[in-house]
Amino acid sequence: MQRFKLTIEYDGRPFVGWQRQKNGPSVQAAIEDTFKIFAPREEIRVTGSGRTDAGVHALGQVAHVDLERPMSPDELQGAINYHLKPNPVAITKVEAVDQEFNARFSATKRHYVYRIVNRRAPLTFDRGLKWHVKTSLDAEAMHDAAQTLVGQHDFTTFRHVACQAKSPVKTMDYLHVERDGEQISLFAGARSFLHHQIRSIVGTLKLVGGGNWSRADVKAALEARDRQALGLNAPPDGLYFKNVEFD
Amino acid sequence: MQRFKLTIEYDGRPFVGWQRQKNGPSVQAAIEDTFKIFAPREEIRVTGSGRTDAGVHALGQVAHVDLERPMSPDELQGAINYHLKPNPVAITKVEAVDQEFNARFSATKRHYVYRIVNRRAPLTFDRGLKWHVKTSLDAEAMHDAAQTLVGQHDFTTFRHVACQAKSPVKTMDYLHVERDGEQISLFAGARSFLHHQIRSIVGTLKLVGGGNWSRADVKAALEARDRQALGLNAPPDGLYFKNVEFD
Repeated sequence: MQRFKLTIEYDGRPFVGWQRQKNGPSVQAAIEDTFKIFAPREEIRVTGSGRTDAGVHALGQVAHVDLERPMSPDELQGAINYHLKPNPVAITKVEAVDQEFNARFSATKRHYVYRIVNRRAPLTFDRGLKWHVKTSLDAEAMHDAAQTLVGQHDFTTFRHVACQAKSPVKTMDYLHVERDGEQISLFAGARSFLHHQIRSIVGTLKLVGGGNWSRADVKAALEARDRQALGLNAPPDGLYFKNVEFD
Repeated sequence: MQRFKLTIEYDGRPFVGWQRQKNGPSVQAAIEDTFKIFAPREEIRVTGSGRTDAGVHALGQVAHVDLERPMSPDELQGAINYHLKPNPVAITKVEAVDQEFNARFSATKRHYVYRIVNRRAPLTFDRGLKWHVKTSLDAEAMHDAAQTLVGQHDFTTFRHVACQAKSPVKTMDYLHVERDGEQISLFAGARSFLHHQIRSIVGTLKLVGGGNWSRADVKAALEARDRQALGLNAPPDGLYFKNVEFD
């Protein structure tokens, strides 16, 4: 048996999320189902580095899978990609790894990017792929306010009520907000994130960018440790699971 | 009567092209039809800086339109965009201009970009928005060979047989090919282009990038002044009308 590390890119629009669910198509199921065609005797389970919600995208989700059938990384990449069609999911890299590698538990840092298009005109190419914000945003003020959230904090305010993590305490390694023309990107990195944590942060920073909230309001919301203190939860459209680091 | 300059972005996938045609939806018709709602007494004609083919996109197509009904540029932008929904077309800018401005005849330089994704894995976000080339391409060799096409030449080889331009002689101001990770972009600028000229150039340069053709082969194809000498015509997917310059 060989373990493989898969790097995966997907457009989250048609999916109920990464994880296999009964209520609709998931990325995990789409990938697992391809093995039924080229490795039908095996019960295949694909384990991802992180769950993404409905409509959330990935540039570099990572997963591991164990396979009895002897295949080279190149053959495996070709086989999964071939059978994934027409799903907007692509295996961009396959590497043979040892059994100690675990996409979920060996991950030491996860990186996300959230993309906003800040303009009056509607979106064309980017519908469902970026958050369209019409009111003018001050990206520098957003970046400044974001720094109050860097470091170890109790992120109860920035956590979905159904979040299953044992603790609301997380360490945010960095938050960067940058403007490039009409596009604003927020980059976030941490060992792990709470459910809806980035979307909650982005929604709140949007209020700062629009002048409705101050940096002090963000700090007060964090310190309230109360989901009711959240300003706004951003839509899934602009969120991308960017890449994962391992030991 | 007031003349307006419109800057237009569109995803060309659902359209038969810029120009109004009987065989399907066009971008021009989509925009002209919005005026029937908010300026129903006027016979509106929208004149573009350039025709784009079926499946070709625009980041900054320009058009002009004359309107009797008094409207500010902001009001006009809002009205067209509102009624364009759900077409993937957006008016990104509206300016009041004088009657001498003509989107087609006042244009002094047109800029295009052609985008290639050069990787083995299938496309996810970019289907129909970039050309997917699986074989590894040498972008530097493509750039080098492209320089043989810069300047004034008879581009008969790089011209659709149905091209209606009076002369096949055009002056290519610049051609730049750049790689950024797995993305290769070709930038092209000229006063005007022939029908399929950029797609013909990109297709030919793809042969150079893959090692099938040399720089000398490109020069020989140009000098043949014969459409039969063309290497390959690239698909519309990766082509974007980028911006237009005026006097």
